[in-house]
Amino acid sequence: MLKLYYARGTCALASHIALEEAQADYEVERLDFAKNEQRSTAYLAINAKGRVPSLITERGTLTETPALLVYIAQLHPAARLAPLDDPFALARMQEFNSYLCSTVHVAHGHRQRGARWSDDEAAHKSMAAKVPQNMRDCFALIEREYLVGPWVMGEAYSVADAYLFTVARWLAGDSVDLREFPRAQAHFDRVAARPAVQKVMTLHA
Amino acid sequence: MLKLYYARGTCALASHIALEEAQADYEVERLDFAKNEQRSTAYLAINAKGRVPSLITERGTLTETPALLVYIAQLHPAARLAPLDDPFALARMQEFNSYLCSTVHVAHGHRQRGARWSDDEAAHKSMAAKVPQNMRDCFALIEREYLVGPWVMGEAYSVADAYLFTVARWLAGDSVDLREFPRAQAHFDRVAARPAVQKVMTLHA
Repeated sequence: MLKLYYARGTCALASHIALEEAQADYEVERLDFAKNEQRSTAYLAINAKGRVPSLITERGTLTETPALLVYIAQLHPAARLAPLDDPFALARMQEFNSYLCSTVHVAHGHRQRGARWSDDEAAHKSMAAKVPQNMRDCFALIEREYLVGPWVMGEAYSVADAYLFTVARWLAGDSVDLREFPRAQAHFDRVAARPAVQKVMTLHA
Repeated sequence: MLKLYYARGTCALASHIALEEAQADYEVERLDFAKNEQRSTAYLAINAKGRVPSLITERGTLTETPALLVYIAQLHPAARLAPLDDPFALARMQEFNSYLCSTVHVAHGHRQRGARWSDDEAAHKSMAAKVPQNMRDCFALIEREYLVGPWVMGEAYSVADAYLFTVARWLAGDSVDLREFPRAQAHFDRVAARPAVQKVMTLHA
């Protein structure tokens, strides 16, 4: 059985949705970031980075959302959660996931995680001030360049949809109105309506 | 034929090495970041993000290093540049690549690219000041947790080795001495000695 460590409001939601969509044999354990449980000795032994998600498998622990999403899709091919038989389409999906991970998530992180990159509180404030503009720029690019529709990859739902949904949930806290991006808003509503997503969201409230 | 857009000193080196190791049918075009060529109208039509690498394929353009690395490996299976037949091992490689992309590259980026995340020059200075510590922390984790040896994935050379080599080249500019990390230093020397890497490096001087 797979086991996913997650915390509310984090990117671990994407892997959680993917596991549910795949009808995987899995369980979850929730960490409370408010209590800094991700920095506990017990959890650091699981994931030395002190982050979520962590996925415990029978062969060892995996981390990093883009890696987990493809792994979950590969482990459950019947769920067709990624274009596994088409290297170009898979690369396109990975390109999108990598953009979310290394640019959009990072842009968002500068609102509350400025201490990762500076020891100066004034700098943290100036980083936080730029977050709405950066997230708006990211979603403008997603709306224009990436979101084929109805799903990210076009006609086929994939793990990239769970990931975009996860990141789009952060926009309100970043003072950006998703309705500025009508196609991304419609995509968000479409993902939110999926039964697997509704079931998972009860554990992220 | 594939075409890779790159610039000197960037993460595009990893994909360039992968193409050469794969004995791919490819050509390269170099952009001069000092002349801001990555922001030209012509290049933004190729890659709206104004970054490198971009890989032109017969089906369209791909970006983002982790996506390109797996794609190049999949397109050239005889070169055995990734554990394509083992989802867990592939996820482990992707986890490593994703860490380089979203944490290590981002940590490095705060030395010269602070304007991405703040409009305040004092904040840029405070970000740059923290880069050596962050890069040191990242390489301590790579040394301790990831680098199996002799290659990243163990006995088999993979695209992850090209990527780690690429990022390790940035350490000196970030005021970190790679020799602090003996296993990473030995790995760097091992990659540097490969004929494909030596050939590619002549174009990155």
